[in-house]
Amino acid sequence: MNKERLYLYDTTLRDGQQTQGVSFSTAEKCRIAEALDCLGVDYIEGGWPGANPTDSAFFDAAPKTSARLTAFGMTKRSGRSAENDEVLAAVMNAGTGAVCLVGKTHEFHVRAALGIALEENVENIARSLAHIVAQGREALFDAEHFFDGYKANPGYALECLRAALEAGTRWIVLCDTNGGTLPVEVGEITAAVIAAGIPGDRLGIHTHNDTESAVAASLAAVDAGARQIQGTLNGLGERCGNANLTTLIPTLLLKEPYASRYEIGVDPAALRSLSAVSRQLDEILNRVPLRQAAYVGASAFAHKAGLHASAILKEPSTYEHIDPETVGNARVIPMSNQAGQSNLRRRLAEAGIAVEPGDPALARLLDTIKEREDQGYSYDSAQASFEILARKELGQMPRFFEVKRYKVTIERRKNKYDRMVSLSEAVVVVKVDGEKKLSVSESMDSEGCDRGPVNALAKALAKDLGPYQNKIADMRLVDFKVRITQGGTEAATRVIIDSEDAEGRRWSTVGVSPNIVDASFEALLDAINWKLLRAE
Amino acid sequence: MNKERLYLYDTTLRDGQQTQGVSFSTAEKCRIAEALDCLGVDYIEGGWPGANPTDSAFFDAAPKTSARLTAFGMTKRSGRSAENDEVLAAVMNAGTGAVCLVGKTHEFHVRAALGIALEENVENIARSLAHIVAQGREALFDAEHFFDGYKANPGYALECLRAALEAGTRWIVLCDTNGGTLPVEVGEITAAVIAAGIPGDRLGIHTHNDTESAVAASLAAVDAGARQIQGTLNGLGERCGNANLTTLIPTLLLKEPYASRYEIGVDPAALRSLSAVSRQLDEILNRVPLRQAAYVGASAFAHKAGLHASAILKEPSTYEHIDPETVGNARVIPMSNQAGQSNLRRRLAEAGIAVEPGDPALARLLDTIKEREDQGYSYDSAQASFEILARKELGQMPRFFEVKRYKVTIERRKNKYDRMVSLSEAVVVVKVDGEKKLSVSESMDSEGCDRGPVNALAKALAKDLGPYQNKIADMRLVDFKVRITQGGTEAATRVIIDSEDAEGRRWSTVGVSPNIVDASFEALLDAINWKLLRAE
Repeated sequence: MNKERLYLYDTTLRDGQQTQGVSFSTAEKCRIAEALDCLGVDYIEGGWPGANPTDSAFFDAAPKTSARLTAFGMTKRSGRSAENDEVLAAVMNAGTGAVCLVGKTHEFHVRAALGIALEENVENIARSLAHIVAQGREALFDAEHFFDGYKANPGYALECLRAALEAGTRWIVLCDTNGGTLPVEVGEITAAVIAAGIPGDRLGIHTHNDTESAVAASLAAVDAGARQIQGTLNGLGERCGNANLTTLIPTLLLKEPYASRYEIGVDPAALRSLSAVSRQLDEILNRVPLRQAAYVGASAFAHKAGLHASAILKEPSTYEHIDPETVGNARVIPMSNQAGQSNLRRRLAEAGIAVEPGDPALARLLDTIKEREDQGYSYDSAQASFEILARKELGQMPRFFEVKRYKVTIERRKNKYDRMVSLSEAVVVVKVDGEKKLSVSESMDSEGCDRGPVNALAKALAKDLGPYQNKIADMRLVDFKVRITQGGTEAATRVIIDSEDAEGRRWSTVGVSPNIVDASFEALLDAINWKLLRAE
Repeated sequence: MNKERLYLYDTTLRDGQQTQGVSFSTAEKCRIAEALDCLGVDYIEGGWPGANPTDSAFFDAAPKTSARLTAFGMTKRSGRSAENDEVLAAVMNAGTGAVCLVGKTHEFHVRAALGIALEENVENIARSLAHIVAQGREALFDAEHFFDGYKANPGYALECLRAALEAGTRWIVLCDTNGGTLPVEVGEITAAVIAAGIPGDRLGIHTHNDTESAVAASLAAVDAGARQIQGTLNGLGERCGNANLTTLIPTLLLKEPYASRYEIGVDPAALRSLSAVSRQLDEILNRVPLRQAAYVGASAFAHKAGLHASAILKEPSTYEHIDPETVGNARVIPMSNQAGQSNLRRRLAEAGIAVEPGDPALARLLDTIKEREDQGYSYDSAQASFEILARKELGQMPRFFEVKRYKVTIERRKNKYDRMVSLSEAVVVVKVDGEKKLSVSESMDSEGCDRGPVNALAKALAKDLGPYQNKIADMRLVDFKVRITQGGTEAATRVIIDSEDAEGRRWSTVGVSPNIVDASFEALLDAINWKLLRAE
């Protein structure tokens, strides 16, 4: 059977950046673009070149992708030609293969927000998109407020679309900008647009989650004939977010009628990476992953109800709508950890530790991991700490040195110039080869700036480790992430530290404590121990 | 025009309790039941009496409600009569006006999980529900796995429903237990059930969010003719959660075709309490509220995109699908370094600060904001700090107290039992009304657990503020977020603190410093100052 192709257009880097509290650095945008490309989306919208420095910088730094990199902008303003609109020029100058321009299709917005005649807006749309096509780029038209516009004045809304189509636009994207249109209406209006002569294989759908229906509305548009879906990873986006590609991708691949009718650029291997990609984005954003997220959430296949859990043990399909492994997720049954052993052996092998199947140490180690993960440790994102924990449990961890005690003081007071200044000081006492060593460091850097208690502690700890000193000399802390793991202020703090050495190794370690300095210290210790293991 | 009545059936206390990490106390269940009753749901499912001690205790302690309290259980087992099934007896003994029994309608489950003949299962359904009716209770039948069962064997699935109906069951609830059925199919199968003779006004719908479509699937069932909707507050529930009543209620009241066609038990005044009810549940669960939640989330009406924010200032309806006040929520126009003066004036007005257009203070304040955002401050997620910054710049910020200095000590060493323990101690010196006050606190909580330096500092700071002390007594820190803003360890740390008070206010403040304790202290100071401003 011939399947029809559906196209996925990701806007995590543009609309996703409108999420309250989210702002990507250029390097983060590059990492996300690479992840999206591995996943197999067709288009990656990178931002609005010219609108802010990060977006412009991203297009210069962007990785080479199979997915088509797309710049976003708006149709030219009135009173100048497309060639002479400097906002549009900045968008074109990003040099992407595809350009998507937002333009108005709702007569109220043309009058109220732009304050121009309806015909002038149509002209602006046509000229802008023709300009893109003339430059040899693939053109997309983002029809802003289309559904509300269609309901207010269908003739005008369609006229705007036709103007774009006739200008040679590849994709006309029906955008439910305010997110208030319910799925049934999205389906009906999409069908009406197709009936009015805009071909379905030129139509895209862009929805928002303001009624918690963005995914269903996207599917309703596909049912009606649209062939491009726009969305974001983890449903990031302005207000309540955009249509969630992390949900749409598995639904399109695994659920009927979509699985039989359509094909998309995501293959089964990429689908198995979906949970990891979702977590990677949260990691970049320093967000706590949503446990109950569809398909990829930590609770998505957790069976708590007694009736369900016992049936699942007999036959997983009784209470699971899909096999969790297809999306790289895992079943969680509070009572049993048997499923974990082969998985655990694989992770140990990756760290160079061989354990026979059935070794009782495996069950012990699983219990320890589970207990510590309940306390807030996260071994998924801290492989070096996982290795150290496993080696300890298996009796394969050398004891390089022992920390006897430490003390950190943070003081903030007025200096002699009557300015408030702060300073931290750390004393660490370690025992190395039977010898006790006291080290002290302060948090002031070479520029006289206070770098805080964790910095002072890291410096004191690394100051004198006797025979091991030269082995950690090339080690550098490159990132430091802190998260409250149980909500509320009286909860535990999880610190993840990324370290690097001169040989280009990069490793992550974790510490958990209600005391943030203590959690940091634990992660620092693991980081040094892992480096010493590798230096042996 | 005659509207048809739709009934809302809340299962927060039963299915919601299957959420991973959630377990309610009896007192919490009572508080939630009261909130649900004020909201205006028709049924409150309280739990499964006999299945666990909390559920049984709740039915004894339950508040008197207008909503019909409902006990949940399962159809009688084979080999005994309904009268002699002790599991069913425990459910009946709760004495509720309504009883809902789950039973199987999927032939595979009857054979695989129950291991009984298909006819025997039908008999168990009929006898169990007849027993409830005979006792003068309202009977509901929860048809487990109905959609999957109907697809496998429609004749048998319908036979089960008919048996329940003929036994006098008030509501037959079509349950998509595994959550994998998409909205279109839910609608088609519901229509087929009605066509097969089960009246729509006897049909309920119970969906799960495993494909992020539980809300849309519930609406599809209503479109097809079902007249009872089951769901939970905030979409709590097993795995990915149940259909979210917090979303469905405003959609039914505010969106077409539902608003014109149907009436529900929730009135406009109750609708305005919706955001508060949602937050109250999160507070009971000690969960961080989901910012992007539809209708009630803190970001649901946050307009970050420059184009949107400027249009909103002219006319809110341009980028809002409903008026946020109808659901007790509020519009947020986050500050960002692109925002212009009119946006700023709007934000100031919201904080009760009037500034004339063109006032030079506006440009000054914009510069200050931009400079601080470059340092890592984020006023988009910390509106209370924005207000304080603005008031300072405009000379409208009272100086309640002055911090002269502080000192925090963190120590980790062996205790007398040779175990490593840590303890933090903070000394804060403030000047209030010309009087110098020294306060000291340690980080140990009432359970002997070390809560770390920020906790010690917060306690010392709040310990003695003289005349202001009683004004901050009801203040509580509810979340604490830390992020490194410039990458690398030598970078600045941004701390955002969310606080709450007894009046239900919630505010966010920000602090930035390379020293995490110092950044936290700055955010704490803003939090207290903002509370004092409001208490004036």
